[in-house]
Amino acid sequence: MTFTILVTGGAGYVGSHTILELLNAGFDVICVDNFSNAHKDSANIPTAISRVEQLTKRKVTFYSVDLMDKGAVKGLFAKHKIDCVAHFAALKSVGESCRLPLKYYQNNIIGTTILLETMEEAGCYNFLYSSSATVYGETQYLPIDEKHPTGNCTNPYGKSKYFVEEILKDLCIADKKWKVISLRYFNPVGSHQSGQIGEDPNGIPNNLMPFIAQVAVGRHPSLKIFGSDYNTHDGTGVRDYIHVVDLAKGHLNALNKLEKVKETGFFVYNLGTGSGYSVLDMVKAFQEASGKTIRYELVARRPGDVASCYSDASLAERELGWKAQLGIKEMCEDTWRWQKNNPNGYSKL
Amino acid sequence: MTFTILVTGGAGYVGSHTILELLNAGFDVICVDNFSNAHKDSANIPTAISRVEQLTKRKVTFYSVDLMDKGAVKGLFAKHKIDCVAHFAALKSVGESCRLPLKYYQNNIIGTTILLETMEEAGCYNFLYSSSATVYGETQYLPIDEKHPTGNCTNPYGKSKYFVEEILKDLCIADKKWKVISLRYFNPVGSHQSGQIGEDPNGIPNNLMPFIAQVAVGRHPSLKIFGSDYNTHDGTGVRDYIHVVDLAKGHLNALNKLEKVKETGFFVYNLGTGSGYSVLDMVKAFQEASGKTIRYELVARRPGDVASCYSDASLAERELGWKAQLGIKEMCEDTWRWQKNNPNGYSKL
Repeated sequence: MTFTILVTGGAGYVGSHTILELLNAGFDVICVDNFSNAHKDSANIPTAISRVEQLTKRKVTFYSVDLMDKGAVKGLFAKHKIDCVAHFAALKSVGESCRLPLKYYQNNIIGTTILLETMEEAGCYNFLYSSSATVYGETQYLPIDEKHPTGNCTNPYGKSKYFVEEILKDLCIADKKWKVISLRYFNPVGSHQSGQIGEDPNGIPNNLMPFIAQVAVGRHPSLKIFGSDYNTHDGTGVRDYIHVVDLAKGHLNALNKLEKVKETGFFVYNLGTGSGYSVLDMVKAFQEASGKTIRYELVARRPGDVASCYSDASLAERELGWKAQLGIKEMCEDTWRWQKNNPNGYSKL
Repeated sequence: MTFTILVTGGAGYVGSHTILELLNAGFDVICVDNFSNAHKDSANIPTAISRVEQLTKRKVTFYSVDLMDKGAVKGLFAKHKIDCVAHFAALKSVGESCRLPLKYYQNNIIGTTILLETMEEAGCYNFLYSSSATVYGETQYLPIDEKHPTGNCTNPYGKSKYFVEEILKDLCIADKKWKVISLRYFNPVGSHQSGQIGEDPNGIPNNLMPFIAQVAVGRHPSLKIFGSDYNTHDGTGVRDYIHVVDLAKGHLNALNKLEKVKETGFFVYNLGTGSGYSVLDMVKAFQEASGKTIRYELVARRPGDVASCYSDASLAERELGWKAQLGIKEMCEDTWRWQKNNPNGYSKL
């Protein structure tokens, strides 16, 4: 029996990498995206999805749907027998969320509640949620395991992820039919080894890795490193970077649990490597992988940033049988392959 | 110059009492309600609003609007110049929220964000929010002042109130034009002295006072008191009951601040008396006020209930010039007058 997954936000960075792994593992995939952060090809399919189809030699059923449009979401469930929803769709820029909080709360919360409501009506109770380490708010101890307190997030993006987790918990308490897994991503980087799909942020990247890669191809003169006086091995901030292919595979393990384990309720897993690398570690590794010199300047700390943040990901290993396999070398090499082949991302310009 | 207030959920318990005070103080009032928890009279006006009009000899402009209907909300702002919104509309049953969390999150969060978005578009930035002491979650110290931590709420109703407060804070940080006052109600009881308007809960009341009043008129055989072994003066739970007329007047003081003070941002005030009464105190006072015997039985504690909860309301006194005037005697006498005159609430049956 095939297991059909509806993937929301499937044209995005983590979504497209996950679809690739799902197809390779034999799942059927229906993908929806509203193109808010994705490029279309000539046939009006997200470019990332066309490339995933080429790479896997399998078809993805694609719909251009906004989750705020309840009628359209209902239509998906009327047309297809969906066994599980993997919900990636969300606005994700921390900076923009501080400027436009209402937009973030509306999109990220309402979109999700409409989806959940429609699932209930359709009798589909398996839900895989793209959460984030930002739900942990201020770090109280390291490494961060799943028992670390959540909430007290410093920006609307993080709060919207936290609020949705709370909504999911309440839903699982109210109705024992729900089986929900929330995956808390640490810092996804890298690209599929083909160099055909990768991270393609709108505008100036918020995150370190795409910024480094864009410096390497000359789209920015240099990298600003915010803070070099943190209590870390070289003074720059330490984060738990995880290769996006490892992350994508983590979703497969979670789906296997949703498919096979009878126990219902709300489950949460960190997806990280458990190791922290500093900004300068990443710059050095990227220089080695690319053969390019990454110019950088050390500037003042950015408000809200912490010195170190890394995961205890042992629960995912114990309960999902998942463990990150790829290291900093692959993260940088694969990012570089994608960036070199696609200096302007999916855009043809 | 008149100051026009749009009151959402104006047909409800606190909303209708506040409209009465607003009209008496000379404000112009536009009231919207979706009748989710309100009775209509023959002219399709909420009964509570008709009675407020009779009592004040003033007219209320009324619209039957659901805040989830963005077009209808936009229409209100197109038709009227609104200076301030007092936002009472919300689903408020703790028990129902545990059974139907998605319904509560959708109504209470989406309704509010649609309203705020429409206000922004219309250039109206004065917002008075009906919050609740439930946002304080587990009590960490007594009396509870506004610096007490919020969050960790035990039910979806409370979380929805907390989430909206966080959204309002973020909005005020993002755009300095917003002036928002969140009023955290403790336990509203009582009725307008006329006995013409009052609390008329759907179904079996969740709250103590309407339950006692319904026992007094014979709608229930006896009152269940959950827990008689708390560490309080008589073993029953202690709460900060506040007369709804005092509460309504608190909104007037807050509106005066919104109207006259230039400073923008997010402000929060407790509205309570600062005194706690136990369940048995309330039963005794109600017996005295009504001359009726209230039969009760002492049963086990209810999960999630705390022994004592009462406010430090001194900030509202210092900054808004507001202080509760009415005591337990008036709370019980006025509730009884309303209940005796309207044994079945607003319903004619």
